[in-house]
Amino acid sequence: MTSAFDWIDQRLDERRRAGLTRVLRPRRCDDRTLDLAGNDYLGLARDPRVTAAAAAAARRWGAGATGSRLVTGSTELHRELEEQLADFCGTEAALVFSSGYTANLAAVTALTERDTLIVSDQHNHASLIDGCRLSRARTVVAPHLDPAAVQERLTGRALVVTESVFSVDGDVAPLTRLHRVCRERGAALLVDDAHGLGVIGPGGAGALHAAGLAGAADVVVTVTLSKSLGAQGGAVLGPRRVIQHLVQTARTFIFDMGLAPASVGAALAALSVLRTEPDRAHRVRQAAKLLHNGLLGAGARVGEPGAAVLSLPAESPDHAVAWAARCRAAGVVVGCFRPPSVPDAASRLRLTARADLTDDEIARAVETITGRRLP
Amino acid sequence: MTSAFDWIDQRLDERRRAGLTRVLRPRRCDDRTLDLAGNDYLGLARDPRVTAAAAAAARRWGAGATGSRLVTGSTELHRELEEQLADFCGTEAALVFSSGYTANLAAVTALTERDTLIVSDQHNHASLIDGCRLSRARTVVAPHLDPAAVQERLTGRALVVTESVFSVDGDVAPLTRLHRVCRERGAALLVDDAHGLGVIGPGGAGALHAAGLAGAADVVVTVTLSKSLGAQGGAVLGPRRVIQHLVQTARTFIFDMGLAPASVGAALAALSVLRTEPDRAHRVRQAAKLLHNGLLGAGARVGEPGAAVLSLPAESPDHAVAWAARCRAAGVVVGCFRPPSVPDAASRLRLTARADLTDDEIARAVETITGRRLP
Ligand SMILES: Cc1ncc(COP(=O)(O)O)c(C=O)c1O
Ligand SMILES: Cc1ncc(COP(=O)(O)O)c(C=O)c1O
Repeated sequence: MTSAFDWIDQRLDERRRAGLTRVLRPRRCDDRTLDLAGNDYLGLARDPRVTAAAAAAARRWGAGATGSRLVTGSTELHRELEEQLADFCGTEAALVFSSGYTANLAAVTALTERDTLIVSDQHNHASLIDGCRLSRARTVVAPHLDPAAVQERLTGRALVVTESVFSVDGDVAPLTRLHRVCRERGAALLVDDAHGLGVIGPGGAGALHAAGLAGAADVVVTVTLSKSLGAQGGAVLGPRRVIQHLVQTARTFIFDMGLAPASVGAALAALSVLRTEPDRAHRVRQAAKLLHNGLLGAGARVGEPGAAVLSLPAESPDHAVAWAARCRAAGVVVGCFRPPSVPDAASRLRLTARADLTDDEIARAVETITGRRLP
Repeated sequence: MTSAFDWIDQRLDERRRAGLTRVLRPRRCDDRTLDLAGNDYLGLARDPRVTAAAAAAARRWGAGATGSRLVTGSTELHRELEEQLADFCGTEAALVFSSGYTANLAAVTALTERDTLIVSDQHNHASLIDGCRLSRARTVVAPHLDPAAVQERLTGRALVVTESVFSVDGDVAPLTRLHRVCRERGAALLVDDAHGLGVIGPGGAGALHAAGLAGAADVVVTVTLSKSLGAQGGAVLGPRRVIQHLVQTARTFIFDMGLAPASVGAALAALSVLRTEPDRAHRVRQAAKLLHNGLLGAGARVGEPGAAVLSLPAESPDHAVAWAARCRAAGVVVGCFRPPSVPDAASRLRLTARADLTDDEIARAVETITGRRLP
């Protein structure tokens, strides 16, 4: 018998033959592997203060928000998180979403109209690209990390879209120069700070503070609560009128359940830890540098990290898979990135540092990844 | 000084003048109003068993999943929820997402290719519409609840997309007839069961069971964990190969943080309550009928509910806002739906029933909404 989904078998086969099949590997609770793949940069996802806050919020406010934010899904806890996020990142206001993904869809679509030109960095994250696709604006892709190329493309009403720290390779956008270009041309700037918040800027206050742009009238930032803050969710931060406009128009805000209270509570607790222990941001960058130095010393090809993400090129998808599997077998989990989840055609290992990595763990990681014992 | 966001003031003004400004009203923890607006149909969001499971999961697994599902974000808890959801809804497999919104984006985009025709019901939810916009397929909109019109539009490779219970008006899709039409034309059927799971079908097993389609080889269902299950998140359910294909290709799965453990734990606990207390589904439908009868008896114009959602037409946006405000002032929260969040140009109040509504609460609601004292 034939079915309407028979074509899927063919697609699965093609992928298998190309060595590109992805497999889910659920972890156990007592998993003891060394994690160099996750995005829990500050080690807060399992911090007892953060998990206790998640638990308390679930008990106090319920397991779910019960409705979309404009119906019954806004609690005082959501409002408090929005105030704290805006304060921490130095913007007038903030709006919390159910994920960083939906925050990005909202920001790109709500900040553009039919006559807007979007200039989007070539390496931007899938959620930003989907935002461009959903918007009614025209999108042009600019070469990676190239303010001059952005400048050339800017005409009329425009929105420049970039990550602060790029998710796959960890390289850092020249925000100050990009902003200058935007200012000159009257364009707005949207910065996805998913991998910057908690890691760069003073005390982890993120990309805007790092670039001296906190409070800029023509800049909007998106963040995720799921990486440095160890929880789930996302937010858009910027001038108050931008946030008000999002409440009126952003489909992924209006038509989506409010963020679960447990995640709101966890993110609030993580922000409070970050305020009392601003050193954590320094520690994760330090860990990334140590990891980088170790890898370089062992002869690996690896660029200098601007934040907490490192990238090692692999010869082929198969090579990347085998390399990552070797690491995993030795108890070290690393990210394995292959087409089509890379901004170019190249496969690589992706490593992430954590504020709580020990020197021993870094040494073990270097040894496992490079196969070389360090002196 | 001018800024790149000056145009927003104009948009906010236009909205204000049209009486369409939306306002966030954060609720307090000790809020005592009668909620006829949320989607916590079974009253499980605050069930102590569900909130305790959320708290326990946060403590045991962490406040966040730490990575995307294919990197470090899959836990045994996610796997267990996927098995339980598939079992409960009668499909081969399931895949959990961070929201129902992202589950819908994934399902529509992954189940279509460039040569697919999407036939989408006119009243479909924003997340399904955004899925159509993101897909590379061509979309045609079919008149609401009209299998014959769908049949006319079906040619070649196609995906028919519908909600089971429509979110704004609560009317129910003729799934058995739609499926017959799809079968005849070799088309696939995608059903968004956000408002059906937990409410319709035996014991709340949802739309597929209700329509005798559980296990159908050419049907895929999406659900949300944020309504009847009182948590947050979404899932796609269907044949195993479809789920495998989503793991390989769905951008909102691959590039998004895994669902927070607290929400996974809460949804699992809610499913388990639903299995041991299958009567809850019956009770919410019963409450909806009582509310309907009461409103009719008091002279309101209101259609018969097929699930737990009721809709009352209002004369104008202003009228709807004033009506909802009057109810709120009397301690009854109702949904107020105005353009553009309605599938047509008409404003209305949207009411939702809950399994734990008492007869007294229903009487109070009817009185407040209609302004008439019942005999
Ligand atoms: C650069 C970037 N933006 C946005 C997101 C989406 O955030 P979230 O996973 O919290 O939805 C991610 C991560 O997945 C990311 O790496
Ligand atoms: C029909 C329908 N589909 C999908 C969604 C999205 O689900 P979620 O809010 O869990 O993201 C909703 C509700 O918001 C809905 O009403």
